[in-house]
Amino acid sequence: MQIPQVTSTVDAAMSAALRAAIDNKTKPLGSLGQLETLAMQLGMIQRTTQPQVVRPAIMVFAGDHGVVAEGVSAYPQSVTWQMVENFLAQGAAINVFARQNCCDLFVVDAGVNHDFGARTALIDRKVGSGTRNFAIEPAMTRQQCETAMQHGMDLVARPEGNVVGFGEMGIGNTTAASAIMHKLTGSSVADCVGAGAGLDDDGIARKRQVIEAAVARHAGIEQPLDVLRTFGGYEIAMMAGAMLAAAQRRMTLLIDGFIVTSALLVAAKLVPEVLDYCVFSHCSNERGHRHMLEALNARPLLQLGLRLGEGSGCALALPLVQAAAAFLCEMATFESAQVSGKV
Amino acid sequence: MQIPQVTSTVDAAMSAALRAAIDNKTKPLGSLGQLETLAMQLGMIQRTTQPQVVRPAIMVFAGDHGVVAEGVSAYPQSVTWQMVENFLAQGAAINVFARQNCCDLFVVDAGVNHDFGARTALIDRKVGSGTRNFAIEPAMTRQQCETAMQHGMDLVARPEGNVVGFGEMGIGNTTAASAIMHKLTGSSVADCVGAGAGLDDDGIARKRQVIEAAVARHAGIEQPLDVLRTFGGYEIAMMAGAMLAAAQRRMTLLIDGFIVTSALLVAAKLVPEVLDYCVFSHCSNERGHRHMLEALNARPLLQLGLRLGEGSGCALALPLVQAAAAFLCEMATFESAQVSGKV
Repeated sequence: MQIPQVTSTVDAAMSAALRAAIDNKTKPLGSLGQLETLAMQLGMIQRTTQPQVVRPAIMVFAGDHGVVAEGVSAYPQSVTWQMVENFLAQGAAINVFARQNCCDLFVVDAGVNHDFGARTALIDRKVGSGTRNFAIEPAMTRQQCETAMQHGMDLVARPEGNVVGFGEMGIGNTTAASAIMHKLTGSSVADCVGAGAGLDDDGIARKRQVIEAAVARHAGIEQPLDVLRTFGGYEIAMMAGAMLAAAQRRMTLLIDGFIVTSALLVAAKLVPEVLDYCVFSHCSNERGHRHMLEALNARPLLQLGLRLGEGSGCALALPLVQAAAAFLCEMATFESAQVSGKV
Repeated sequence: MQIPQVTSTVDAAMSAALRAAIDNKTKPLGSLGQLETLAMQLGMIQRTTQPQVVRPAIMVFAGDHGVVAEGVSAYPQSVTWQMVENFLAQGAAINVFARQNCCDLFVVDAGVNHDFGARTALIDRKVGSGTRNFAIEPAMTRQQCETAMQHGMDLVARPEGNVVGFGEMGIGNTTAASAIMHKLTGSSVADCVGAGAGLDDDGIARKRQVIEAAVARHAGIEQPLDVLRTFGGYEIAMMAGAMLAAAQRRMTLLIDGFIVTSALLVAAKLVPEVLDYCVFSHCSNERGHRHMLEALNARPLLQLGLRLGEGSGCALALPLVQAAAAFLCEMATFESAQVSGKV
């Protein structure tokens, strides 16, 4: 496996051209707030003052987690494959939101503990039937982790457009994401653990104990790829690989919630330049996500108290990304519209 | 002028039916956060568990303000009519965002100090060529204020759909809105005054002094309609009337930023039930808007640091309103998708 090289978007001349283009639009200076920052970022990524959102796609990666044997989730493991079936039947939230916003949707079996048979709408990249239980042993072998990442890198060739959102489904994967967050940000385990799909306080306490014990068992694991294979999941590793390859292709990456951001934590430790390409779609209601975003110096677009996953936040934020590109391309300038400037 | 009667949306049976419909969708309970609250509201307004966003529209009301003679704005008054021309030429931010989100746009001359001539795309409801200077005398006569409100009520018949957003354009109208806010919320003038389209600190101080002096001059003005005619503007009065009539028709009202919310402050003092129909699209960066929203117990959808007006926040929030209706109508239930519930 070769880690993709990613070029920083930093370019002083491009930045100045974009600032001038934004400031010449018929609106008070700075009055589009965060959309201006976003328009600037899109322009830097695409190296143009006329950025376009072309055929956006969301890729949803599904995988199972051995650590569910420790009782860390409110839902049974079978919900992972049942929800994949729901994606294929167009019944889940991400189907509704992707459809509403005219966004392509790719569903990937990264390692679900279920035999789906041959299904045209499902991209089969199953690395294994769920990971191992990291309370006992590393979730993945080095080879499995690299295979998952390589699949992610290769899959980024599928979307035909220039904006890709990342989503996931996997019962138990907030536990994996919390452990990754703890290892890569240094936040206490308590600050990294939340309710996931719906644990009560006792469940959260148990999840925390499971992670604390596992972290002690796997003491000395510090390198990002080691953290990923020890605590992560196939879907998390596949997303990390896909993110790096997408940034290498100068695509704009839409980052969803807690689990997707944990994959980005790994990717950004390996290649910090990936962050130049990331748009943070929302701050989720999962405890820890806000700290994760702060660790990445990220400012999310939406704060709606979502905690659903599936890439749902990416789909909901997509119209704002389109709006940022659109105002930069389509608004009149003070000169073209003959509007007076400040007195 | 007759103030429209508005029926509260409160209905315990409808509320229970909506809660059950939302909770049966294939997602963790509550995991769509604020979108669930919004879906509930749409269902209550439309009295159905299958709410629809039908042909949404934004109405932009433009008017001029005599108080600009006091030097309260960073831009000359001529920008009001120039921006109306920009709306008609499709070059402003609201044109771009309405087009992007397939939203009808109506531009109304409520009282701009300019002769546009006959223009098919402009709805002429000019009550006067700008208001009078409220630093000296009431901005409107009682008759002018009522005429403006009545026009607003009548204009709500124009949109063919069931969702209407409100926007405005008017150099000087943050000064009017600040004065209204001070009178109707009791916040200090200092807490109600911000930079508007781009005042510096000296400009803000001057604006504050102008309002404080005017408030002293018009002491004893307390009734909402008296506050509106004394400090408001034609566009603000027209919006207040339009809001009440739209709520009477059980439309969903999208509320934009500082000036639009000041019109709602008046409307809600007259008919508190109007608030049941209001979706607060964003919290603007104009100082005072957050307090205004708090005074209305409102939770905005977006917090993007916008301070543009024109209804731009309404257009940007519209996809979230559509998403809320869509998930309720289109998502599978646990039963229909055969997904397991909690363990």
